[in-house]
Formats: sequence, structure tokens, C-alpha cells
Amino acid sequence: MIKIICVGKLKESYLVSFANDYAKRINKYHKLELIELKDSDIKKESYEILRHINSKDFIITLEINGNKLNSIDFSKKLDDWLMNYSNITFIIGGSLGLDKSILEKANYSLSFSDMTFPHGVFRGILLEQIYRGFKIINNETYHK
Amino acid sequence: MIKIICVGKLKESYLVSFANDYAKRINKYHKLELIELKDSDIKKESYEILRHINSKDFIITLEINGNKLNSIDFSKKLDDWLMNYSNITFIIGGSLGLDKSILEKANYSLSFSDMTFPHGVFRGILLEQIYRGFKIINNETYHK
Repeated sequence: MIKIICVGKLKESYLVSFANDYAKRINKYHKLELIELKDSDIKKESYEILRHINSKDFIITLEINGNKLNSIDFSKKLDDWLMNYSNITFIIGGSLGLDKSILEKANYSLSFSDMTFPHGVFRGILLEQIYRGFKIINNETYHK
Repeated sequence: MIKIICVGKLKESYLVSFANDYAKRINKYHKLELIELKDSDIKKESYEILRHINSKDFIITLEINGNKLNSIDFSKKLDDWLMNYSNITFIIGGSLGLDKSILEKANYSLSFSDMTFPHGVFRGILLEQIYRGFKIINNETYHK
């Protein structure tokens, strides 16, 4: 299963539609669970995130200073993780980012950009890239 | 004026709302013109793009292999460009990318990520980052 843990509600309905569109598309390839946690202070957020992590999960944190991959290399990693772990868990922080206690748990730290994006926009971007990954893994055409 | 030339229509209404939301927010800081061109073959697309460029425009092409900036450095460039040029023009290619004839015209080539994003998603991302740039230039708080 692919689990996506996000902190903070989406304020704009277009961001909800953006995330839902790609979540639905991913579901055709793999079971996906999206967990949205309430934003509060970073310690409480971390506590809630930790409650949703299992010890066997392969954990990928999204961080501005993480590893950078292109879409092809990301799809290869995704394929590899899915083959070796039954649960892979992506964690997107809220406006406060992610606490050290969460970053320490990461098996892989991933960065999409040097730029800062709103967390709500980022949710859609991550889902799109996972969907793109499945299209690449399955050798299917996908319009940019 | 900030001009954004994009190739290809947005297929999903949530992408239209995403782009419009940030276009509206940018308008409070600066005059913005969004030009959407029909996608066709790359030569026709280039011809249409060139028709919308003036010789005095400062041209920024969005390219996967372009320069990478963080949000702070992007805001500094934006501030600098706006001070030195009356028209700054961003060009986002369609699913076919941008032709050499357009890339040659670029005064600056900008990359947001090593990853490939859908051009329709990218439009919103660019607008958000320009809006973020104005917030940074004006020393205003902006939630991530």
C-alpha cells in the first residue's frame, strides 16, 4: 500500500479536486491511502504522524534539502520500493515543515525543488508524480 | 507588465481555478497578462509564441535544464527584472516543450525541478511562485 500522510487541510476546493483526481488515477495501479492530519504545533503534529506510521513502513519524507530525482529515476525508485516493502509512506509536512523526530525516521528524503511550494499544492504535485511513475513503470504513454 | 505565454488549453477545471486564483492575487502587485495559445505542432506553436513577443521583452523560458533558484533568489531576480525591464515574459511550452527558435530568444532559462510536470499544473506552480516572489519582495508574511 502507498500511504500519504499530510499535515493541514486544503483550503481551496480546486486543490481538493487536484489531489482527488490523481489519487483516483493512482488507485487503478495500487492501493492508496491518504491521511490528512490537523495542523497545530509541530510537536503535536509529529505525535499524530508517528501514530500513523508502522515500524515496517518504508518512509519517504518530502524535504527541500532532500535527494533530487528526475521523473524516470523517481519511477525506478518507486518500483523498487513497491517490490521490497508492503507499505511505503510519504510524509508531507504542513506550513511548519517536519520535526526532527519525523526526519529521523526517514528511509529516504526526497526533494522536488529548491523552491518552496504551498503544502496544499505540493500534495497534488506528489500525487501526480506517483501517477506518472506508474505510467512510466508500465510503459504507458502519458501526456505532459 | 508580466506576460505569461502558455501553450495548450487546461483540460481540468481545477487547473483553471488554480491558475486564476494566483493570477488574481498577482494582479494586486503588478499588471499580469496571461496568453494561452492553442497547441498544434511545435513549429506552429513557435510561430504563435513569436507573434506575442516584443523585441524589448525580457524573456524567461521554463526548461527542465534551466537555472535552479530557491524562492528567495527567484524573488530577487523578479525584483531586478521588474526594475530593469518594462515587460517580462515567461514562456511555458506545451506537451511538446519549446522549440529551439524560442529557446534562442531567452534572456534567462529557469527550471523549477528535475521532474517533469504536466504543463497545466506547471502554469499554476509558476503563478504561485511569482505571487510568492511579490510577498517576499514586499516583506509580507505568506503561509506555506
